[in-house]
Amino acid sequence: MGKEEFVKEITNIEEDFAQWYTDVVKKAELADYTDTKGCIAIRPYGYAIWENIQKYADEKFKEVGVENVYFPVLISENLLQKEEEHVEGFAPEVAWVTEAGGEKLEERYCIRPTSETMFSTLYSKWLSSWRDLPMVYNQWCNVLRWEKETRPFLRSREFLWQEGHTIHETAKEAEERTIQMLDIYADVIENLLAIPVLKGRKTVKEQFAGAVATYTVESLMHDGRALQAGTSHYFGQNFTKPFEVKFQNREGKEEYAYQTSWGISTRLIGAVIMAHGDNRGLKLPPKVAPIQVVIVPVAMHKEGVKEKATELYENLKKKFRIKLDLRDNYTPGFKFNDWEMRGVPVRVEIGPRDIENGVAMLVRRDTLEKETVELSNLENRIEELLNEIHTSMYNECLKRREEKTTVAYTLDEMVKNLEENQGYVKTMWCGDVACEEKVKEVTGAHSRCMPFEQEHLADTCPVCGKKAEKMIIWGRQY
Amino acid sequence: MGKEEFVKEITNIEEDFAQWYTDVVKKAELADYTDTKGCIAIRPYGYAIWENIQKYADEKFKEVGVENVYFPVLISENLLQKEEEHVEGFAPEVAWVTEAGGEKLEERYCIRPTSETMFSTLYSKWLSSWRDLPMVYNQWCNVLRWEKETRPFLRSREFLWQEGHTIHETAKEAEERTIQMLDIYADVIENLLAIPVLKGRKTVKEQFAGAVATYTVESLMHDGRALQAGTSHYFGQNFTKPFEVKFQNREGKEEYAYQTSWGISTRLIGAVIMAHGDNRGLKLPPKVAPIQVVIVPVAMHKEGVKEKATELYENLKKKFRIKLDLRDNYTPGFKFNDWEMRGVPVRVEIGPRDIENGVAMLVRRDTLEKETVELSNLENRIEELLNEIHTSMYNECLKRREEKTTVAYTLDEMVKNLEENQGYVKTMWCGDVACEEKVKEVTGAHSRCMPFEQEHLADTCPVCGKKAEKMIIWGRQY
Repeated sequence: MGKEEFVKEITNIEEDFAQWYTDVVKKAELADYTDTKGCIAIRPYGYAIWENIQKYADEKFKEVGVENVYFPVLISENLLQKEEEHVEGFAPEVAWVTEAGGEKLEERYCIRPTSETMFSTLYSKWLSSWRDLPMVYNQWCNVLRWEKETRPFLRSREFLWQEGHTIHETAKEAEERTIQMLDIYADVIENLLAIPVLKGRKTVKEQFAGAVATYTVESLMHDGRALQAGTSHYFGQNFTKPFEVKFQNREGKEEYAYQTSWGISTRLIGAVIMAHGDNRGLKLPPKVAPIQVVIVPVAMHKEGVKEKATELYENLKKKFRIKLDLRDNYTPGFKFNDWEMRGVPVRVEIGPRDIENGVAMLVRRDTLEKETVELSNLENRIEELLNEIHTSMYNECLKRREEKTTVAYTLDEMVKNLEENQGYVKTMWCGDVACEEKVKEVTGAHSRCMPFEQEHLADTCPVCGKKAEKMIIWGRQY
Repeated sequence: MGKEEFVKEITNIEEDFAQWYTDVVKKAELADYTDTKGCIAIRPYGYAIWENIQKYADEKFKEVGVENVYFPVLISENLLQKEEEHVEGFAPEVAWVTEAGGEKLEERYCIRPTSETMFSTLYSKWLSSWRDLPMVYNQWCNVLRWEKETRPFLRSREFLWQEGHTIHETAKEAEERTIQMLDIYADVIENLLAIPVLKGRKTVKEQFAGAVATYTVESLMHDGRALQAGTSHYFGQNFTKPFEVKFQNREGKEEYAYQTSWGISTRLIGAVIMAHGDNRGLKLPPKVAPIQVVIVPVAMHKEGVKEKATELYENLKKKFRIKLDLRDNYTPGFKFNDWEMRGVPVRVEIGPRDIENGVAMLVRRDTLEKETVELSNLENRIEELLNEIHTSMYNECLKRREEKTTVAYTLDEMVKNLEENQGYVKTMWCGDVACEEKVKEVTGAHSRCMPFEQEHLADTCPVCGKKAEKMIIWGRQY
């Protein structure tokens, strides 16, 4: 099968981005649909990406004192209802267990959509003195939200995530933890996934059900749509009061603890696909790629080729996540396309003439550039190249973000900008939710966040014309 | 609080083992009860044990080609029912989701009690040629079984486990995989958890619902009760036929694949507690202990003590999982008891006189033996000591198992042995399920397994007196 035919199996990325995405997910064997409607099966290649994200994030978490736990997946209806805003936000999309062990249950249990209620009720049991604080717990687990429209990784009824829930002695400490965890998310997404993020605070309308403040790391996809990549919430005492999470403070008085929660999910796999992919398929950032290097021997039937390829593989596997493709029922050309489609960052080609000359050919997935490398320098050059690819992929995304970020001073300009060059639109904002809703109605864009790095673009709100002190960023979203 | 009082908070292990177990689980903060009946919250100290088990096992799995995946937690009723024996075995104890997203569902979904059905249906989608085989997939996840009586870790409605599910080209390859994974379980339990296991095959009565053969690793607890610590199943084509998991074989003919599954769970945390613990509480094997070494300074207020303890901590933490106990509201005596109760394998005590002499005191948790060590030799000696403790704890369990293993030639002898010295009873067995049921009825013991290492104890079955060729082992169980 020639390159043309092969590539045809993936929809053109500029023609139908949504279909391109689905094609890549299925063809690269990241995930598949299942009999359980709205839920996907994450296949080995997709799950290995998640394992790399977990490993990186979990180490960072532990460096800042996070301890892992595991709490029940079932939450009683009574518990879910204790915090008013929270239950309003989540009740419509939960799944209920009503029968078990052959009997109808007296009380329904929901499958956790998130675990603020479970953590709060357990914290209330364990907390007694300021000496017990902080409690900085996290769980890696599955959650379920009965979404009407689903898409693999981006919006699946069941997904995997980590949910951190912490309680603190003071508001200040809790607020600092909220930002500390947001910074770790930015680290994961930028330094592991090679996607630049925008850090900021969500508007009240967009914040988490029950939060005092929600902070977010926002990313921009190939098509100029925004993706919320991770969030960190400060709850104040909103949950600790109804759940009676209280302690004796240093003055011997009873006080309610201050709380946070924060999460990233398998949605990040979707972000990797949509931020980096192209018409050849997946393009994986080297640090998170399950296979960083693939060796494809050329003219494998010729004497010594298989042996040399195997020797290289044995040496390089100590340093890199590497695959040796010795399949005898495919041509090298097919294999090149196949591994490009699967997004492997570096391909090593080696044939009889290369062996004679003591070299190999390196092909990088991101730019498709080729270079000949002395075998004695192969390991070093691959290591350099993986770093170069990471930086180059990151810069590519950053450049796109800059190109797709525009400024608007009127509602009409916002519509025009989004129509002509879908991406982020920066404006001032008066802070009124009515203006925010008007923007959504007219442009289809949600507010992404009020970035930590503010600029003073104008004096007034583009919607109502009233005084505006905050800069806000808008975008159509996934 | 003196040592006497402290120890009193844990029920005497010889008087009420069940209560001792619950006391240790709660007091060492391994887990706690929750509002979700029959489900526990695994706290940081308990979860860290599970993380160490996961890390060790997952590395071994990957060395033998296992790939991790994640498939949906919800399984439709239709799917669950496809294999007859399987649904009979599991349907009585599943939990059903009947409402979701604000509506009553057309078809019920169960929360997975195990995922043979889900894996089989997905394998049928992905498998086409012998070239696709084997598929050796595993998932680390939660499962739910609506047990009537529950105990933390040992029998919880929700528990964490890994479930491996594999499909193969030939029966031989699948059978070999079954045993290969059983061997890895034995490795985990013996070399990480310091508990000797007995490997063998389950009787038909005790095997997994839908299996051709179930293999097991059995362990013996402090009180002489047996605990099934891990199982590995060979399914033949029992699932691949109803689920149509078929492929074109090397001869170009259609054939059904051969299947296995295998699992270990958070039950192993219960095994660690019950195999090793004593009247002071938990006793953790060094390789799985979340904290391997604790440093407790003595006379902490004296000049230089805190500083020296901190210096030791900073040096040793590169090598060991270590804790420095600088709490100023507890006496050293309280701390000694506290860390013994939590089962930390090695305690380092250091006070002003030790510092003067350039030494520290090492106390091992398993034997409570003390030794004085030169500070210059501290790291080496701790490393040696951790290995010695592992071996010694393993041997202790092995000795107990030998002491609690008896031979019986009649049913009366079986009753007598179990009454006088609860543990394993070895007998011959004719292979008839009626005899097996009779033993259970009279002695309360289940068959554990037919060990791979067979002995010829007699010529006849102790129940029916007929010819018997198999040796079998019995025991009361958790």
